Amino acid sequence: MNDVIALLKAHRSIRKFTAEPLADEQVEQIVLCGQAAATSSNIQATTVIRVRDAAKRQRLAELAGGQSYVAEAGAFLVFCADLHRVKTACEREGGEYHDGMTEQFIVATVDVALAAQNCAVAAESLGLGICYIGGIRNHPQEVADLLDLPEMVYPVFGMCLGHPDQDPEVKPRLPLSVVLMEDRYQDPAVQEGIERYDRQLRAYYQHRTSGQKNSSWSEEMKALAGKSRPHMREFLARRGFTMK
Amino acid sequence: MNDVIALLKAHRSIRKFTAEPLADEQVEQIVLCGQAAATSSNIQATTVIRVRDAAKRQRLAELAGGQSYVAEAGAFLVFCADLHRVKTACEREGGEYHDGMTEQFIVATVDVALAAQNCAVAAESLGLGICYIGGIRNHPQEVADLLDLPEMVYPVFGMCLGHPDQDPEVKPRLPLSVVLMEDRYQDPAVQEGIERYDRQLRAYYQHRTSGQKNSSWSEEMKALAGKSRPHMREFLARRGFTMK
Repeated sequence: MNDVIALLKAHRSIRKFTAEPLADEQVEQIVLCGQAAATSSNIQATTVIRVRDAAKRQRLAELAGGQSYVAEAGAFLVFCADLHRVKTACEREGGEYHDGMTEQFIVATVDVALAAQNCAVAAESLGLGICYIGGIRNHPQEVADLLDLPEMVYPVFGMCLGHPDQDPEVKPRLPLSVVLMEDRYQDPAVQEGIERYDRQLRAYYQHRTSGQKNSSWSEEMKALAGKSRPHMREFLARRGFTMK
Repeated sequence: MNDVIALLKAHRSIRKFTAEPLADEQVEQIVLCGQAAATSSNIQATTVIRVRDAAKRQRLAELAGGQSYVAEAGAFLVFCADLHRVKTACEREGGEYHDGMTEQFIVATVDVALAAQNCAVAAESLGLGICYIGGIRNHPQEVADLLDLPEMVYPVFGMCLGHPDQDPEVKPRLPLSVVLMEDRYQDPAVQEGIERYDRQLRAYYQHRTSGQKNSSWSEEMKALAGKSRPHMREFLARRGFTMK
């Protein structure tokens, strides 16, 4: 329909980058685009920490489960949900900040994700590739310590950015019929859609790996069960996100 | 730097729309762009419910705190975090889904926000305006009932889309120095940045409202304290998001 829509639909994660660094101005423009995203009640709960220090990059790559591109990409950004700044502002005016509400956690986390996706789109519009790194939640306390994060700030995910040194295909998604519904949730559509997607994804993997990878979406989702970072609840509570 | 970056930086929420409806194909293309966003471990936890039914639209506008544009916009979408589909897929393969982990809640909520922001960008690239509606979390149980949401699905936010019938300015954001940091969190930058932004935002409001609105960011953040939807914790637990 237009170039922007074509760009959005062409997204795939990039995990192999050339050695070419990113210009500071590129990173700044990308983060300015992130800031331009909508923010709940103007709280602007996003803080981006660009990690340049090579030792920190290396350590983050290890903490994220041995994802070497965290150290190698042209730039690595840690997206943090930041209510410390809001609390500081509130207290500057003599207000009392009541922390730990689940709603605040949602609002801050959503704010960060909206900003990050704008960054991703901006980066891709510049010909760069990106990859979100949820793996920084493997050891979030170590990440928080490494980056001197104050209370009321938590690292939501990282993002690798750089010049792509690979050209993977766009992965097929669930049928639109499963994802876009009208007026009410329609469970029969879900069952049928999963079946269809299971076949499609298996065929895609078979094709992409010359027959080596043979799994459906349902099989992937089964394999994920139980892999859910059980430390997050306690980590967040220590940060001040107590989920009241 | 390019047209996409200019588009991203030009975002402002639109709350007044012409009567011109959206074509079904537009909505479909917009949601396909949402699907194209990154998704954690391919869980694709986003479900979008387009509300067409006029009575439901009217009710949602009331539940969101009397936001009439929820009923009036060319289209209204409810973005849901959906782990019901993942659970269904897991169980199709004989797996046992362990629900209620905080990490799953984060992953699903982030998935939805990434998809929604792609939808926002796609819509704006088509000349449409959008507005996120966090107000659907004012009465989330009623929203869930209205849309027949099954367990493990919760409404994160709504989005109005339509042809703009207003042309508001882009609101200034916090200085980049507060939002983009290097290698570690830098609190002194935060204090100085808030002071600067307080002055800038007050001047912006004064200018925009011919002197009527006179508040700083810190004053806004103070006014928000305590407004944090205390029902969310219990509502989410009832939905299966128990935050273990």
